[in-house]
Amino acid sequence: MATAPRSPTDGISPVRMEALCDGVFAVAMTLLVFDLHVPTVAPGKLWPGLLALWPNLLSYLISVLVLGIYWLGHRAQLHYVRRADHTFHWINFIFLAVVSLIPFSARMLSAYPLDPVAIGVYGANTIAIGLLLWWHWRYCTDHSRLTSEQISAATRRYAVSRCLVAPGCYLAAILISFASPVLSLVIYACIPWLYIVPGWQKYWLRLFSR
Amino acid sequence: MATAPRSPTDGISPVRMEALCDGVFAVAMTLLVFDLHVPTVAPGKLWPGLLALWPNLLSYLISVLVLGIYWLGHRAQLHYVRRADHTFHWINFIFLAVVSLIPFSARMLSAYPLDPVAIGVYGANTIAIGLLLWWHWRYCTDHSRLTSEQISAATRRYAVSRCLVAPGCYLAAILISFASPVLSLVIYACIPWLYIVPGWQKYWLRLFSR
Amino acid sequence: MATAPRSPTDGISPVRMEALCDGVFAVAMTLLVFDLHVPTVAPGKLWPGLLALWPNLLSYLISVLVLGIYWLGHRAQLHYVRRADHTFHWINFIFLAVVSLIPFSARMLSAYPLDPVAIGVYGANTIAIGLLLWWHWRYCTDHSRLTSEQISAATRRYAVSRCLVAPGCYLAAILISFASPVLSLVIYACIPWLYIVPGWQKYWLRLFSR
Amino acid sequence: MATAPRSPTDGISPVRMEALCDGVFAVAMTLLVFDLHVPTVAPGKLWPGLLALWPNLLSYLISVLVLGIYWLGHRAQLHYVRRADHTFHWINFIFLAVVSLIPFSARMLSAYPLDPVAIGVYGANTIAIGLLLWWHWRYCTDHSRLTSEQISAATRRYAVSRCLVAPGCYLAAILISFASPVLSLVIYACIPWLYIVPGWQKYWLRLFSR
Repeated sequence: MATAPRSPTDGISPVRMEALCDGVFAVAMTLLVFDLHVPTVAPGKLWPGLLALWPNLLSYLISVLVLGIYWLGHRAQLHYVRRADHTFHWINFIFLAVVSLIPFSARMLSAYPLDPVAIGVYGANTIAIGLLLWWHWRYCTDHSRLTSEQISAATRRYAVSRCLVAPGCYLAAILISFASPVLSLVIYACIPWLYIVPGWQKYWLRLFSR
Repeated sequence: MATAPRSPTDGISPVRMEALCDGVFAVAMTLLVFDLHVPTVAPGKLWPGLLALWPNLLSYLISVLVLGIYWLGHRAQLHYVRRADHTFHWINFIFLAVVSLIPFSARMLSAYPLDPVAIGVYGANTIAIGLLLWWHWRYCTDHSRLTSEQISAATRRYAVSRCLVAPGCYLAAILISFASPVLSLVIYACIPWLYIVPGWQKYWLRLFSR
Repeated sequence: MATAPRSPTDGISPVRMEALCDGVFAVAMTLLVFDLHVPTVAPGKLWPGLLALWPNLLSYLISVLVLGIYWLGHRAQLHYVRRADHTFHWINFIFLAVVSLIPFSARMLSAYPLDPVAIGVYGANTIAIGLLLWWHWRYCTDHSRLTSEQISAATRRYAVSRCLVAPGCYLAAILISFASPVLSLVIYACIPWLYIVPGWQKYWLRLFSR
Repeated sequence: MATAPRSPTDGISPVRMEALCDGVFAVAMTLLVFDLHVPTVAPGKLWPGLLALWPNLLSYLISVLVLGIYWLGHRAQLHYVRRADHTFHWINFIFLAVVSLIPFSARMLSAYPLDPVAIGVYGANTIAIGLLLWWHWRYCTDHSRLTSEQISAATRRYAVSRCLVAPGCYLAAILISFASPVLSLVIYACIPWLYIVPGWQKYWLRLFSR
């Protein structure tokens, strides 16, 4: 029996997958704006109509920041990746499929901001993205499978924490939503800042690279 | 009579056509989410409303995977292509036109999941993509027209089988839909895994490279 | 009076403008599919519902091919361009603004396929794209302004004819629409093939490079 | 206490952030066309229906030009940037979040063209983009933080004026809207030409590089 030839997608450059990811994130970020409907109001009543959009605006802002966090995590991981293979491509496709769901979850959250089901779906979506990013990291870096260099243990710990801290917080927010949906929304609005504020992120860096 | 000058698009780099393709696939993947409508329900009834979205979710997942399969096939073929020409560009445009139809076919499938016409249109769409990919491969590689190297016979057999196995399965599913639409949907949901599960794809590799 | 410093966008690479153009064309091509509405029909009546979509399908196909023609023309022109400047960027923005209108014109054409106003708007849109592409070519290549090499006279004549033949045909179709809208639609459906069929395009090449 | 390791996104190339920006701008430009609804009219009444779209067309044109101005400003700034870091990425994400809002602001402006609230929201949106671009410039170039070369004082003055002249004009237009919304719209339609007409922009160059 002949040895199977290498798949033509083994060992090729990850550059085009990066381009596909950038495209999907760009479209997903921009489609979020469709959830901001121009209110239909009587003349002179546009201001209260705008204020009534607060759940949509909150959901828009949270979702752009969430997409930013995961784009940046994905981008940081790809920084180490030198070649792609079959499984790498499919982990990325499933990752993109879940990223593309964010506009749907965001629309549901803005339509039912205090319903635990909507909060749960949004949280489950972000948790799924985080876990896929973790799988992506493990797959690419274990035994330097797709990287050119050995990744240091500190960098590995940091990357794993980067992937898993957000899902942990979202899981807590989902559990809390059964008691207080408002508190869950507050947590949702706060999670991105753990990643954005440089001082807070540095605190983790120190915590997880010990 | 003067010799016609070479068209300015003969012999140029295929890089920008790759970028256009990545863009079209990224938008098509992301637009699929528009078929997931947030259900309008009474308070506390969101969960049954979500469950009623099953045809849309199934159609979403199948379509993202289908787009993944064909993106990866196209990407693998472009790996060998070194230059573009007039016909190459137009094969790609027609390929993209048919890829862009997937969100329409997916919407129809989720609106009429058990109607043989909807199943037939979806299948015809995916068959058309597969056949165009096959034409693309033949055009690029015959007599090394647009490639730098001679492609091995095993790689050629593998690429052709990659293009044609899915259309064959879709054709079977279309024919079965007249007897049992449910069985067709099951086949639709299974076909992508022939491409995704590494062990199954390797089985083909061995089968077709003998 | 001090000499004005060079604008920081003079002499820079045109690569990112190419990426923006590829993005706009990819989105415009993919958004066309939104004009294909899934028909709402009684069970078993999906086939006649699909057939009633013929103006939308015709408009979709014409528009994808039109976008293909102009993307390829733009791409061929950029092949010669080595650097960008202020005016280059703005010609491209206006070009993209008019390209982005195609989904609107296509929607109108499929809603009112036999109305001379809809036919006129569609034709005017494509004529505007063609004339902007001609301006783009003249600006980039006159006195080798943004090119590295002197463009041969034959190539110049060919590029100009490439830009202007389609607008001429569209203008004729608009004029004919007042007598026979159906004939105009037939001409619209035929124009792209002047660019696609290699033999026909070579005929021009010979005609215009004499 | 251990020193925190460098974040893996410090010092990496800004190329992928550029690709994400190009994607977001391309989608935002193209989505604007969704505000141009095909009018529903009696046969033969399409022309007046089209003319009634004037606020939408005006809003479309202004918005494409506004996006062009800010894309070009961002592109010019990136010309000097050699490496990215954590804060750079987040300034860009917030910039993109605000750019993505333009289709919403444009839809509101075309729905309520003479309402000071709609005019104010549109102006506030463009002002926010301009201020974020200014912050972007300051962050990247202060102490050559992310640039390879020392930026000349004249270039710095020019870049700052490029960022701040438009917000200043928009602020004036917002204030004027309480007295005369029509005059505000006229100013909105004029502002882009300050950036487009080469002679006018050169006038600034001289003004600010003294």
